[in-house]
Amino acid sequence: MSNFSFIIIKQSGSARAGLINTPHGSIETPAFIFCATKGAIKVADTERLDDAGTQIILANTYHLMLQPGEDTIAQLGGLHKMMGWNKPMLTDSGGYQIFSLGHGSVSEEIKGIRSKQRTLLTINEDGAVFRSYINGKTYCLTPEKSIQIQQKLGADLILVLDECTPFHVSKEYTKQSMRMSHKWATRSLQEFEKSKQGKQVLYGISQGGVYKDLRKESCEFINNAPFFGQAIGGSLGKDKKQMYEVVAYNMEYLRQDRPTHLLGIGSIVDIFHAINLGIDTFDCVHPTRLARHGGALIKPNNRSSQCKEHINLRNKQFELDNNPIEDDCSCFTCRKHSRAYLHYLLKARELLAYTLITYHNIFFINKLMQSIRQAILDNRLNQEKSNWI
Amino acid sequence: MSNFSFIIIKQSGSARAGLINTPHGSIETPAFIFCATKGAIKVADTERLDDAGTQIILANTYHLMLQPGEDTIAQLGGLHKMMGWNKPMLTDSGGYQIFSLGHGSVSEEIKGIRSKQRTLLTINEDGAVFRSYINGKTYCLTPEKSIQIQQKLGADLILVLDECTPFHVSKEYTKQSMRMSHKWATRSLQEFEKSKQGKQVLYGISQGGVYKDLRKESCEFINNAPFFGQAIGGSLGKDKKQMYEVVAYNMEYLRQDRPTHLLGIGSIVDIFHAINLGIDTFDCVHPTRLARHGGALIKPNNRSSQCKEHINLRNKQFELDNNPIEDDCSCFTCRKHSRAYLHYLLKARELLAYTLITYHNIFFINKLMQSIRQAILDNRLNQEKSNWI
Repeated sequence: MSNFSFIIIKQSGSARAGLINTPHGSIETPAFIFCATKGAIKVADTERLDDAGTQIILANTYHLMLQPGEDTIAQLGGLHKMMGWNKPMLTDSGGYQIFSLGHGSVSEEIKGIRSKQRTLLTINEDGAVFRSYINGKTYCLTPEKSIQIQQKLGADLILVLDECTPFHVSKEYTKQSMRMSHKWATRSLQEFEKSKQGKQVLYGISQGGVYKDLRKESCEFINNAPFFGQAIGGSLGKDKKQMYEVVAYNMEYLRQDRPTHLLGIGSIVDIFHAINLGIDTFDCVHPTRLARHGGALIKPNNRSSQCKEHINLRNKQFELDNNPIEDDCSCFTCRKHSRAYLHYLLKARELLAYTLITYHNIFFINKLMQSIRQAILDNRLNQEKSNWI
Repeated sequence: MSNFSFIIIKQSGSARAGLINTPHGSIETPAFIFCATKGAIKVADTERLDDAGTQIILANTYHLMLQPGEDTIAQLGGLHKMMGWNKPMLTDSGGYQIFSLGHGSVSEEIKGIRSKQRTLLTINEDGAVFRSYINGKTYCLTPEKSIQIQQKLGADLILVLDECTPFHVSKEYTKQSMRMSHKWATRSLQEFEKSKQGKQVLYGISQGGVYKDLRKESCEFINNAPFFGQAIGGSLGKDKKQMYEVVAYNMEYLRQDRPTHLLGIGSIVDIFHAINLGIDTFDCVHPTRLARHGGALIKPNNRSSQCKEHINLRNKQFELDNNPIEDDCSCFTCRKHSRAYLHYLLKARELLAYTLITYHNIFFINKLMQSIRQAILDNRLNQEKSNWI
């Protein structure tokens, strides 16, 4: 299918600058994928997203299948048309939210529901049965069903259904789960091949938790299956150190000719680390969620403290600070508004605060990714790092 | 003061098309003033406001004196600079919120507080003492203090402190209150004259409730005092019919060479009525508040029912409606998004819904005012009315 391709333009160490071509345009990698969880980046309109240099967004199958439902979205012409977003888009399989509810271990933010609403009913080889947090209705998600739903949503890049195992389960559980996820991946591919029209491509997801031998087994499976791209999923460990290790040996085992996505990672230091290991794309709620809590991302030369990648605009120190979030930032918010105004809006609980800080954080991350890409092209990634960490 | 002037360009019956010139630019009248209550139109950024044809916004002295405080705003360079709004701006005196809390009769929306938080402590000839709903601190607002605060905020058009009497008080109370408000107006003028620098002009407010003789007395007072502009305040009656009567005889008594503002009126039918009586400017939370409840303003030819000036996008009928709010609208929202998407966002409680509907309603009202102005210039106001009512 000539609608899609992945080209590595330049390799610098293991880091690479590439191009993912899709029917909705090209993604210059490394790239960050922002979370339009329920089909909207909550407080940001699509035109400002675009103006901020955003190349690709993702939406969550889990939320959208429950509301408004994939058939409604299909009738409205698909997710791109419904949202008014004409650039590349990714959807996940729905699995992450279902299983993180069941296991009850991962960020409540992404789930969009409170813990008392955990609704996973059963999980077996066939798939998962869960209750809607909206109306209590029972849903069954199988690998086939996830593909069918994602075909109706119509994102460019779609993912196979996998079981997301948390850190605290045993190696044996992780192994059995991984092997089930492999079977699901094979069924996903079969379902995908049945009705693909060249408008979407499928990503496999490597599993195996923190166990090197399992990761190897999983990568070999992924490498031999006809996926367009690959993602690193499952548990990445208990802390940053272990996460770096897991990603490192995962990247050793995975083929290098496919676009490779790291699920759920979004801090600046982690992004640099992962890019040095060959990761091409990232997604994380961090930049946009942080904004909704008053946190503005900031470069080291603008930081008052070196321990954080952001400033908390709620802090009293910004009450009379007439400077923009960053003097050298040309985002909408920094061109128009001061830290003091944002501080005040947060204090007064005016929604505009979240909108304006979200614009800054999105612009910031896009700028970061552009700078990293240019640095890879120029063979100076390590020097570039010092501008951001 | 050559920074400010009011020119009537064309009179058509009692309706007039004019121009209010201010240091921050001109306002083509009739014009609508949108409520940036606490120094932000909640979900709308100033650039999109500007793009939607907005000429002037207002902010409420009451909220801003409590948070962040007038001294903070002055230190930040004034309200225009703090908000990033470089066009004309109006502030009210603070009285409306204080007294509507005391009397407990007017829209909770504008007050921004719940009824159990009513905090007016005393009111006498000197001024009003009330408690902050934010931190419980006691504040005293006198006519002089209101002017001093508004001078620090720095809006172009500012208002005298008045007591806002509700409908249910007696004629005697209304009369005493009116005479006190006249004394306050005189004190406001004296305070204003003391330190005016040609950067602001003062509006008087006519009182007298629904009593013709009191309205006459109040208008004569206003006519003889050196105000730049005049507003119609106080109770306008129990229903639309009485409101039209009160405004009608008020307009008979008021001088016609000053810009005349009608406080708190914002429905399309009321706007047409008032413009026919010679009103130049309006303010009301209606268009923006309506948007935050899912209501989109709509012209009669786009309406499914003729009884309302808006559609409620929460209604199930819009679930699969792929049309924009209005086919013939060129606002940001109508250019980009369907009714179905807005319906979905409202159902999913995504904040973007409020932002997008707010943009439409602001654009709609600005378009309404532009059309009315052009119709006055062309002597065809009554024909124009049929496009909107």
